[in-house]
Parts: sequence; structure tokens; C-alpha cells
Amino acid sequence: MTSSLKPLFEPKGVAVIGASREEDKPGHIILKHLLENYNRGILKAPVYPVNPNADAILGVKVYKSVKDLPPEVDLAVVVVPARIVPQVVRELGERGVKAAVVISSGFSEIGRHDLEEELVREASRGGVRVLGPNCIGVFSPWSGVDTIFLPYYKKLRDGREVLSTPRPPKGHVALISQSGAVGTAALDYMSGEKIGLSYFFSVGNKADVDEVDLLQELEGDANTWVILLYLESIKRGREFIGVAERVAQSKPIVALKAGRTQAGRRAAASHTASLAGVDEVYEAAFRRAGVIRAHDIEELFDFAKAFVSQPPPSGSRVAIVTDGGGAGVMATDMAETLGLQVPELTGEARDKLEDLRRRGVLPEFSQVSNPVDLTGSATSEMFVEATRVLLESDEIDAIAVLALHQVPGIPDPLDLARKISELASNYSKPLVAVDTGWSEMAVLEREEFDMNGIPSYPTPERAVKALWALYKYGEFLRKKGVFSRYMEEFLERKRRKYVNYK
Amino acid sequence: MTSSLKPLFEPKGVAVIGASREEDKPGHIILKHLLENYNRGILKAPVYPVNPNADAILGVKVYKSVKDLPPEVDLAVVVVPARIVPQVVRELGERGVKAAVVISSGFSEIGRHDLEEELVREASRGGVRVLGPNCIGVFSPWSGVDTIFLPYYKKLRDGREVLSTPRPPKGHVALISQSGAVGTAALDYMSGEKIGLSYFFSVGNKADVDEVDLLQELEGDANTWVILLYLESIKRGREFIGVAERVAQSKPIVALKAGRTQAGRRAAASHTASLAGVDEVYEAAFRRAGVIRAHDIEELFDFAKAFVSQPPPSGSRVAIVTDGGGAGVMATDMAETLGLQVPELTGEARDKLEDLRRRGVLPEFSQVSNPVDLTGSATSEMFVEATRVLLESDEIDAIAVLALHQVPGIPDPLDLARKISELASNYSKPLVAVDTGWSEMAVLEREEFDMNGIPSYPTPERAVKALWALYKYGEFLRKKGVFSRYMEEFLERKRRKYVNYK
Repeated sequence: MTSSLKPLFEPKGVAVIGASREEDKPGHIILKHLLENYNRGILKAPVYPVNPNADAILGVKVYKSVKDLPPEVDLAVVVVPARIVPQVVRELGERGVKAAVVISSGFSEIGRHDLEEELVREASRGGVRVLGPNCIGVFSPWSGVDTIFLPYYKKLRDGREVLSTPRPPKGHVALISQSGAVGTAALDYMSGEKIGLSYFFSVGNKADVDEVDLLQELEGDANTWVILLYLESIKRGREFIGVAERVAQSKPIVALKAGRTQAGRRAAASHTASLAGVDEVYEAAFRRAGVIRAHDIEELFDFAKAFVSQPPPSGSRVAIVTDGGGAGVMATDMAETLGLQVPELTGEARDKLEDLRRRGVLPEFSQVSNPVDLTGSATSEMFVEATRVLLESDEIDAIAVLALHQVPGIPDPLDLARKISELASNYSKPLVAVDTGWSEMAVLEREEFDMNGIPSYPTPERAVKALWALYKYGEFLRKKGVFSRYMEEFLERKRRKYVNYK
Repeated sequence: MTSSLKPLFEPKGVAVIGASREEDKPGHIILKHLLENYNRGILKAPVYPVNPNADAILGVKVYKSVKDLPPEVDLAVVVVPARIVPQVVRELGERGVKAAVVISSGFSEIGRHDLEEELVREASRGGVRVLGPNCIGVFSPWSGVDTIFLPYYKKLRDGREVLSTPRPPKGHVALISQSGAVGTAALDYMSGEKIGLSYFFSVGNKADVDEVDLLQELEGDANTWVILLYLESIKRGREFIGVAERVAQSKPIVALKAGRTQAGRRAAASHTASLAGVDEVYEAAFRRAGVIRAHDIEELFDFAKAFVSQPPPSGSRVAIVTDGGGAGVMATDMAETLGLQVPELTGEARDKLEDLRRRGVLPEFSQVSNPVDLTGSATSEMFVEATRVLLESDEIDAIAVLALHQVPGIPDPLDLARKISELASNYSKPLVAVDTGWSEMAVLEREEFDMNGIPSYPTPERAVKALWALYKYGEFLRKKGVFSRYMEEFLERKRRKYVNYK
């Protein structure tokens, strides 16, 4: 990465303009997190608080003004009142600081377009790239940059300290959000689901840096394999399509676009002062650019999980293996509703499964058509053998394993999860897993699948939707003639060790 | 309840035909759970194992045959090989036992229609009502009847004992499932989400007792306020519509009907040997009978939660209060997509909110139109004041409170949940709550809402869907002219103490 945005990703020195002594102020919380990350060695860049009225904060020397900052500072986090932000940006430009995250609000989102224009003028004149204003900025567990002004914990009245704004672990999913609140909610979701993050960017009012710029940067970021977008509007539609269409050929992009309906657009307009435009335009743009659309936060991350660890399928033919007939029916319904197929097995796979049944490897009354219903008599071994036949079959492009943990023949569902994961790792066919419910056993089984590189879901429908996202992405790759290239890169990545399958 | 099915709900004495000494056998596990529930005083009926080849199991005297059973036995759980089930049922009839739960499989689901017909003949001749065969039977935390042959815990290879098949707590949601696996998965889901259960019935092959019979029974069951159905087929369509249409006028019925698509129907046919019929027929039947349709397990329980604690709204106008603009947009999108309205506030409510803003009770830059966006400057007090205005407004029929916990102005999200819940309890307008994510704080906030009688959801979309279900049900009640009567009964129930709001 050699662009002007590099300091947002890997700063050499970070200044906090508006650092505060008051513990609950954003200017304090941001400084504290940055210092902690620096002291732990996660953030490589030294941190410099700036405040004309303080000598030291958190034991660190405070600089009186931007002019006094040492030369290595290339990123500034700006947390001062809106009216003085343009002046601060001018000073940053004069000082040669290349990038600024403007946390402060009070610009176009409340009608102060004049102030935002002034900010943009100063930034442009001084060569400062600005993220924001009115944003929560950047967070990355890889670089250690964290400008989220919300503390990790809340102290409740009853004295309990409760984890409130957790940060996700290292991983390969990038998130760009136009809403700070949706961003923190998404980070919370990722942490809870243990989905690893590469970079989080809150773009706020997008006065300068927007999703188009960030997509371009993330294209070259080795830690980022999947890119998620939460958008309420796109200003540079043409550029977006051009860049997304290119980036999507090497990294799946999933977008959650709010303001789909008329009332939603009105709500979005009052929220970010941006004109959302009719949904059909976005739909067409996303389709052309190969951007997969999610309809809520759950889908956004359900798809992300699938893309990180599973390849796109070669076609639309899905096999379902289950120990619960009803779950198989629900999965089939969802597959067909989405335009996937659950074909009756007729060829060699059918013969092999029937042979297994004849030999007593599968239960006498199992269904070997598709769904393959192992019934309540299923054992771990049966799941492995049936899944192996389907992984090997040319009749099938993708597999959903619905391993409801309750059946007596699966004494150790974690062992089953490991066996299926290990088996699947020998094939380049996508496989997703399901266990339903929220008992300790259900949660542990899903975690075991996830940890071993198989994305797992709490309902058959969500798993099948994830297969659909993989399928749609594969269609795009084929249309562009880059399916094989993507597959090679994907499999190469899988061969290398990586931090977090999710 | 005076019908012949009473023993399924409140037996006077329970026999386990096919009780086993072997710990992992269904005939052992069922006996063990029933004995435990009897000894703990939850099950009022004494329990009698029957097995010609044992003297005592689990320290309890074993009866050699059905003929020897004491006269109070009115319910038999049958866990013997399929081929001798008809004979056992004949003996039960001769002995005057009124109801049997036939767990055994090996009947029509594997093509043995002859055996199932024989079973039905014997049952009919002897006046025995049969649940099943090929089912997991009955569970109720109220009556203590538990014929689920799956142990609570699994012992993993690493020695850990993990809760695997939990039973939900006492509550007011009944569940009738045509699939045993979906049933246990649903119970697992309810336990994890702490949604209280009244009765669970697994109907299996429905040789005799079916959803129509059970709906009729549940109509009169005081503990049951909401009825959930998982169905793959309905044999007695005309009777179903008639009964459901009547029952739904006093208790909401939510159905998850699998086999919606052609491939799904094929899967269902191979699963339960029942002809599913085209979906349009079911859709029309459900609409006519006022049955609310869910599309997956999550919706099934999202709706159930709402129906237990919230009344149907008087109209389709939804207000959204949020501290995250993006969440408000997503909620608005979903509302409009479902045919609900998110009207711009124009009248008195608008004036009141603007007045609050002018007086500094709401943030200077909050949006008071609808969604009411309190912004990241929101405090608990602001949520309460804004929600009060909306609860009092004639312009609004239902409210979604999106209280993302991260904002600094909400130091104690649990306190906020309690305050909103208390406020809402003074009005008869439905209110649902959202906090997004899976951090400890997010989970605790949602639990606090739930415990205080406000159904909470992890995404704006799921909350709005729940409001939609309430709205559709209200429409049905109005069409039938029973809206006011339902409201009276609902509010009367709320006034009385009850075990579990969910």
C-alpha cells in the first residue's frame, strides 16, 4: 500500500488532537486505548496527546499544539469542537500530517454544510486525507489503531462491570460502515460470534474518504479476504461500480444497504443528510459489480463467515445430510426458494449410498435420495460416510450438514464436528453446518465447526442462505472469467496457516 | 378438560410399557425422567414400569404385563418393538387405559401401513387414544409428563458433561410438532432463550391424535396462551380450518409449515410418508383461520414471545425510537416491506417531542419525526420521555425501542430496560425492544427487557417482524369482531401474576 491513505492502516505516529483528562470524554478514552495498544506492542506507532491546557495525561507528555508534534506523526485523531476542526486540519496540513480521523460531529448532518465545506477545503489545500467527520473512525486488531470512543466496559449500578463494547479478534473480514451505531453493533456481533476482523472503518459524513477509496485500499490488504459494507447512500455511484467490480473479482463484497423503502429513505435522509436514491438503482449497481446483498446484520455476517472459509461452488446443486427429517425439509424449502436445486440423487452417489445402507453402514430406514436423512438412528460415522460420498460426487456442488446434536448415536458432537471438518478440508467443495438451539451443547458444536474451518449456523435456513451467497459470488466470478483464478488463490490461502477461519 | 385426551395432559397414573434396565435405552431414560419428576412432586401421577423380564428397575417394582397394572393408570408410554405394539394397545384397551403415547417407530414412515392400520383398529376398538407412533411424545413443565427419550446431558470424550437436551421452563407457549427432531431443536431453542412452555406434543405419524385434536384441547388449557405448530402436512384440512378459526379467536396460533416448495414437498413425503399438497392451499387455509405463518424457527419463537406479553395493535402505524440512526433506517425498511407504516409525526406528538427538544430534554440535534432518533447523545431519561409521548399518541399503534447499549449516556442499560418496561406496562399498546450484538451487555439488556415483560430481539428487523405478527393477528380479531374481547382477556391475564412473561 503506497497511497495517501496508508496512515489510516499503518500509522508511524498518532496524535490525539483534543486529548482530555476527563475519564468519560472521547478525547480521553481514545488516548487511553491507543496508549494501551502501544504499550502492549500491538500498535507500532507512538501516541502523542495534544491539548493546549494540559501538561500530562495518563502519564504521557502533552503537546501544546499541532506545530510541536514530532515529524513521524502521520495520523491525527481529531476530537475538538466542530467549529475549530477546519483550523486544526489546516495546521495538520501545514505540519505535513497526511491523514486525519475527524470524530467530531456538528457538520452537514445537522445542516452545517458550510463548516463541512470549509473542512474539505482545508484538507484539500493541505493534502490531508480526512475520514469523517461525525464518525467513530478506525479499529483494527492487526494494526492496533482504535479510535472508538466507547469504553470496553460499563459499570452498572449494582457494581457489576459488564463487557459492553468488545473488539473482535484478528481475522480477515473488513467492515466499512456509514453508521457509527451500526458499526459498533456489528463489532459487538462479530465479537460474540468470534468472527475475526481485519479493519473497521466508520466513514461518517464521508466529506473526503468514502467507501470507494477504502475498497481500493482493501483490495491490496493481505489480511482482508472479505469486505462488508453498511451503506445508506453512495455519492460516487459510477466510481463505486467500477472499483467494486474490480475488487470483487478477488475479494467477495457483501453490502447491507439501508433505505430500501420510501420510508426508509426518508429516515436515512434525516440521519445522514444524504439522498439515498431509489433502491432499484442500487440493486442494479450491486448486481453489475458482483456485490452480494445482505438484508440484515445477521445475513451480513452469515455470508462473511462462509466467504472466509468456503470456496464458491461450481454450480447450484445442493446436497443436504441430516439426522432430522424436518430440518432437511426446511433446508430444502429455503434452497428452492432461493433458486438453488436439491436434486434427487440418481447416479453413482445414489448407488454408493444404497450400498452403504445395504451393508448396514447407514440405517436400514435412512433416505438416500436428497436430503439424505440418516434419521434419529444416525451416528457420527454415518455422517462422515454419507458426507464423503457427496463430497466425491459430480452430481453435487455444495453440501449442508444438519447435525442436530440430540440423537443418541452422536455421543460426542464435538468429535463429529472435527471429523466432518477434517474430511471436508480434503475437497474444494463448499460445506456448511447446522446445529439448532442455544443449549450449551448446540453452542459448543457450532463453535467446534467454526474453529475447524466450517461455518456453522443455528438454523437450516441461515446455512442455506450462506450457500446461496457463495453460489451467487461464483456466478459473478464465472461471468468475469476469473473463477479458476479466485479458486487458486482461495485454496492457496487455505493451505497457509491463518489466524482465524472465521 | 373432560375429553378422552385428558390423560395426555394430567394423567392419574403412568405406565411405561417396555421399561428397560439398560441405561441408554429409551425405555430406561423415559422411566428415569418420569420417576424423577414424580419424586420431585412435579408429576402427580405414580409411575409403573412394565417388562415381563425384570423385577425392579431404578429401585421400582416392575409389572409383568399390562393386565397387572393398578386401576389408576390412564396413560401408557409404549416403547416396545413395532410388531407387538398393536397387541399392547389391545391389552391397554382391555385394561381400560384411556391414552397411549407410542414412541416406537417402524410403521407407515417405513411403508408398514399394515401395522399402523392394525394399531389404529386396536386403539379404536379398545377406546384408547394414541399419540404417535414414531414420535417423542409429550413434555410439560407444568404436569411433569416427559416422554422425551433423550437424556439432559451428554458426556463428551474429554469427560465434560454438557447440557444437550434441556427442557424449557414453565410458561405459556404450547408447541405441536410433526417432527421429533424439530421438536427437540425447538425445545433447545426455547430453553436457551428462556421462553416458557406449557405443553409440547410430538405427533409423529398422527395415526390417531393430530393437530386438530390437540388444538381443541389447548383451547381450554389455562396455561396455554399461544400455540405453535410445526407441520409438514395436514390430513384433516376442513376440520383444521374450522377448529383453528375458532381457537385463534382466543389464542394466537403460529404455524411453521415445511414443504413449501416442490423439492421441499418431496423431502417431506419421504420423511413422514404424508402428501404435503401445494403451498397455496395451506396459505389460503392459514389466512382464513387466522393462523400466523412463520418461515423459520427463529420467526416461530420471535412471534411467540411477542404474543405472550404484548397485545395486538389497533392499527398499522409504527413508531421507532432509537439511539442509532442506521438501526432506525433498517427497522423502517422492514416495517414498510411488511406493509406496516412508519408515518411522519405531524400532530400533537410532534409538538410534544419538539417541545422536549426545545427544553433540552431531548438532544438539540435529535430527529423528532419518526424514526425518533435520539442520536449517540441519548440518555435513559430521553428514551423514557420520547417513548411516553409515543405511547400516549393517537397517531401511533405500536412502538419499537431500539436501545443500542453502547452510547455513553446510558450508563446502566438494565436500568433503562426496567424503566421502559415499567412505563409500557401502563398502556395497552404493543412495544418491542432491540439491542444488537452478543456481548455480555447486549445479552443482559435483552434478558432484562424479556424478564420485565417486553419482548426483545437482537436485530431491528426481527423486532419489526414481531410487530407485524401482532398486527396481522389484530386484523384477524377485528374481522371476527372479537378484538375487544381478546384485549380484555389479554389485559386481565397481564393483571394477574404469571410465571414467565415469555
